[in-house]
Amino acid sequence: MNIGIVGLGLIGGCLGLDLRAVGHRVYGIGRRAETCTQALDRQIVDAASTDIASLQPCEVVFICTPIATIVPMVIKLAEVLNPSTIITEVGSVKAAIVAEATGHWPQFVGGHPMSGKSEAGLAAAETGIFQQRPYVITPVATDRYQTNPNAVRTIEQLAQQLGSHIYHCSPEAHDRAVAWISHLPVMVSANLIYAALQEPDAEVLELAQQLASTGFRDTSRVGGGNPELGTMMAQYNRDEVLRSLQRYRDAITATIEQIEAEDWQAIAHQLKTTQAARPSFVPSVSG
Amino acid sequence: MNIGIVGLGLIGGCLGLDLRAVGHRVYGIGRRAETCTQALDRQIVDAASTDIASLQPCEVVFICTPIATIVPMVIKLAEVLNPSTIITEVGSVKAAIVAEATGHWPQFVGGHPMSGKSEAGLAAAETGIFQQRPYVITPVATDRYQTNPNAVRTIEQLAQQLGSHIYHCSPEAHDRAVAWISHLPVMVSANLIYAALQEPDAEVLELAQQLASTGFRDTSRVGGGNPELGTMMAQYNRDEVLRSLQRYRDAITATIEQIEAEDWQAIAHQLKTTQAARPSFVPSVSG
Repeated sequence: MNIGIVGLGLIGGCLGLDLRAVGHRVYGIGRRAETCTQALDRQIVDAASTDIASLQPCEVVFICTPIATIVPMVIKLAEVLNPSTIITEVGSVKAAIVAEATGHWPQFVGGHPMSGKSEAGLAAAETGIFQQRPYVITPVATDRYQTNPNAVRTIEQLAQQLGSHIYHCSPEAHDRAVAWISHLPVMVSANLIYAALQEPDAEVLELAQQLASTGFRDTSRVGGGNPELGTMMAQYNRDEVLRSLQRYRDAITATIEQIEAEDWQAIAHQLKTTQAARPSFVPSVSG
Repeated sequence: MNIGIVGLGLIGGCLGLDLRAVGHRVYGIGRRAETCTQALDRQIVDAASTDIASLQPCEVVFICTPIATIVPMVIKLAEVLNPSTIITEVGSVKAAIVAEATGHWPQFVGGHPMSGKSEAGLAAAETGIFQQRPYVITPVATDRYQTNPNAVRTIEQLAQQLGSHIYHCSPEAHDRAVAWISHLPVMVSANLIYAALQEPDAEVLELAQQLASTGFRDTSRVGGGNPELGTMMAQYNRDEVLRSLQRYRDAITATIEQIEAEDWQAIAHQLKTTQAARPSFVPSVSG
């Protein structure tokens, strides 16, 4: 199959490597000629260009650009692609993208391969990062828009070739689920660091910094991550992030009230509940 | 030196191994005869008994029992030890223990070796867990109580032999610092799991559990830990845990208000601040 990849960053690069490895011909689009040269040098793509018109031979095009530019790119691609070409993308929010993009391109399929690395950019691209990881496909079926089932099947087959576990759900269910497990944790974690920095006693803050260990390290990790990505999650998944944050604040308030009331049974009960429930989210990890 | 260890769990066992290794004679006290036999079999102690009177030859006694039983144990030891014996302990809160214990035993020194493992109990004991880890010593100097400087020096020397980094501060500064970096993270993390479990849509909850990955794993880790330990932290460090939780809730509320107002600059500014600040807490780790 001829496959286009728009955006030669980490995910675009990884897709190129894995799709070429199973025999597809990969056409890459970079914003800069330099990136195209790098992608060719590393054999991430078969052909590379800064011009999206070069994607005309493609049967499937993956948009791997930042969330904000996905719909604008669909609109641009609509002017140059063959109408039978399937356009898909890899954004980490779906509702804000899928309905609008489907309006612009009937052969559009929303997707979210949930793989990543802490490093960004083409230089960090490697093979196999989609193996055994979720690949969520989010078809729509409303009065106005309906995702083409044949297009969905094509994306499923490609995800299977990547070695991913495939899930189907509505864009809304996806966004609500990832608010809990991906976007809320960023806000929870960032505010831990932020609140600690508000400690008014400089000696205590310095001591806290010296004594911080694995508990603080793990709980603060995603809050110390890429600020642009965190802001974009809040922006494009605003309603679901707000909803999860409000429920989270209610839970924190309940904990404060229980400690104020010295209701240690309630605190112990909650901690037993969370200890028992955590493996249902992270079954395969012991740490 | 003859050194007593009351409580042959993980920390007591690790202390025994390391203190014997540098040439001290270690007397262990277990609650059950079986534990004493195990400690002797593994050469964690030179002598073991269920009777604290057997600690009479000791110059230093470490109490390594749960927080709730430390002061009662000081009172019991006061009846059998030579008045020159130094009593110290390893509890993870200090203010609730140190003043009272010093009242019962003038040669008392509060301490907190900040080492641990996810496994508990004597069976998990190993050598070297105090190496390169903080050992906080919390002398008091009030009108009523003053920690003996010679006793502090003895505990310092032992902590040095364990390979620890030694810190000195008041019990109150210790408790405030560990609220930020150890106790607050447990509540922050547990409430993430707890709030997610409140998701009313069963399909979304199941999807969240299937899609949860490293971000949720790390942010939820300490919230899925030992419930008794978490409850004890809240109970014995109540005022500082409450104080940090209230500041944390204020920070979460500010984030909610910024997202409601679509103030993306403010969200980005906070995430840049926390990204920049995290290495001051966890300088030696990249993850």
